[in-house]
Amino acid sequence: MRVAFQGVHGAFSEVAARAFFRESCTTMPCATFGDVFAAVEQKRADRGIIPIDNSLAGSIHHNYDLLLAHALHIVGEIHLRIEHALMCHRAASMRTLRRVRSHPMALDQCSAFLSRFPSLQREAYFDTAGAAASIAQTQDLETAAIAGEYAATLYGLKVLRRNIENRLHNFTRFLVLSRSPGQPKRGVRAKTSIVFIPTTNETGILFRSLGVFYVRNIDLLKIESRPDPDAPFEYMFYLDLEGSPSSRHVAEALEHLQELTKMFRLLGVYPMGKGDFYGAASRRRRH
Amino acid sequence: MRVAFQGVHGAFSEVAARAFFRESCTTMPCATFGDVFAAVEQKRADRGIIPIDNSLAGSIHHNYDLLLAHALHIVGEIHLRIEHALMCHRAASMRTLRRVRSHPMALDQCSAFLSRFPSLQREAYFDTAGAAASIAQTQDLETAAIAGEYAATLYGLKVLRRNIENRLHNFTRFLVLSRSPGQPKRGVRAKTSIVFIPTTNETGILFRSLGVFYVRNIDLLKIESRPDPDAPFEYMFYLDLEGSPSSRHVAEALEHLQELTKMFRLLGVYPMGKGDFYGAASRRRRH
Repeated sequence: MRVAFQGVHGAFSEVAARAFFRESCTTMPCATFGDVFAAVEQKRADRGIIPIDNSLAGSIHHNYDLLLAHALHIVGEIHLRIEHALMCHRAASMRTLRRVRSHPMALDQCSAFLSRFPSLQREAYFDTAGAAASIAQTQDLETAAIAGEYAATLYGLKVLRRNIENRLHNFTRFLVLSRSPGQPKRGVRAKTSIVFIPTTNETGILFRSLGVFYVRNIDLLKIESRPDPDAPFEYMFYLDLEGSPSSRHVAEALEHLQELTKMFRLLGVYPMGKGDFYGAASRRRRH
Repeated sequence: MRVAFQGVHGAFSEVAARAFFRESCTTMPCATFGDVFAAVEQKRADRGIIPIDNSLAGSIHHNYDLLLAHALHIVGEIHLRIEHALMCHRAASMRTLRRVRSHPMALDQCSAFLSRFPSLQREAYFDTAGAAASIAQTQDLETAAIAGEYAATLYGLKVLRRNIENRLHNFTRFLVLSRSPGQPKRGVRAKTSIVFIPTTNETGILFRSLGVFYVRNIDLLKIESRPDPDAPFEYMFYLDLEGSPSSRHVAEALEHLQELTKMFRLLGVYPMGKGDFYGAASRRRRH
């Protein structure tokens, strides 16, 4: 199983791929998210993995755009807690360090920890794992990196501190993509992801669209409106719902919805992620 | 009018502040978004301005969290198109340049343009305007910055290319914050922003919550579900709707909604942004 991901080895996307496939996969780094889609479409990879939303930063619309622009199917999801570690060369220590290098967002997410070390100069880098790699390559004793712990293992760096992030509830949801649609087994809780644009401009069209699920007692797990980037006078909606079109009531709801939409796309049907706090949420709280 | 914003002078937030207040304001740079809220609360600033969502990157949940954690009111909004320019020292030119410096996200957003200049090495920086400032300060002839054109004006840099972004539809919505609630004038199209957590865990609770607006013919302008970061087994909802609680039907809808919620917060009532493509959208397409 060859899995394409965006970033360099040690990136959180690669950690997610290894957690999803339980390390029984070969990972293939790609420069951009578009390259991940292309790698799967052109059969250079069997699966792709992309982040789709983060509990602090929101939905990654750009990756929804790529889902719409390509003909791949979501076949799985996994939630990864984003844990940052401070790491350095094995011969370095807090005393030899002069600066800390990472992606600006990771530096931000660890600002409370960093404020305790004002002498450490912050240095922006393209990505967290790349910052770790750069220190290993140059054998730099004066620079630490902030990245996931897996990057330290991969590049032979020493972990100085774990869990230096300000907010413990920082989760990213990743989607697994394939050329063929998935078919969750019977008895497995399934999730269906769709995108649609309603047909009309009447007030209440969203309410009526959601009615097709309400009258069939189908749980909604995610809903989000978004102005269509290519037609800024229209809204599109992202919806995740519980169940699979292999159940008659879900299939009928999706058919019914298409009477109310001018654009409809089934992005995928897949087992609800394990260790999934959205999934866990829906077991206790529904909407 | 003193307006606090996150970033250094020349940041897109400052451009948004100047567009909103038509330059009749003094801008106050802050290190973090939390500092923006603190500056307004502690009366060091009269208003704050924060980005809340972007057409490619999604809603900035972290800033919604800060809205909930502080007692400020949204009193205005403005949409800014994010336009990137390539800029350098006045004595530099394409021939003297060896590298281009910016925030990793801005470099990404200009990847198509940059791929035409493979000899330009990319260098990550904390922010776009800061990259422009650093070049002006060091009189560096070998480094260009990618930032908004206003940063070039501010730091006396030369603009080499305008609109080098891959995607033209890249808009950020900014919110204007104040210690006192706003009161949009009669005849002005108003927008009301709320956050809520439903009381129960029944299937369809979202549908029933939206019903309070549907039965009163109130337009919804934004809807988004989000797992509560501090209680990951619950969902919260962001909702923007058309109108103001000074209209009886909106006031009654919000009262009705509170019968169905365990947490409800009115974030603000404000005039719909001018040049607002969300607003324009709602004039043609409603949901």
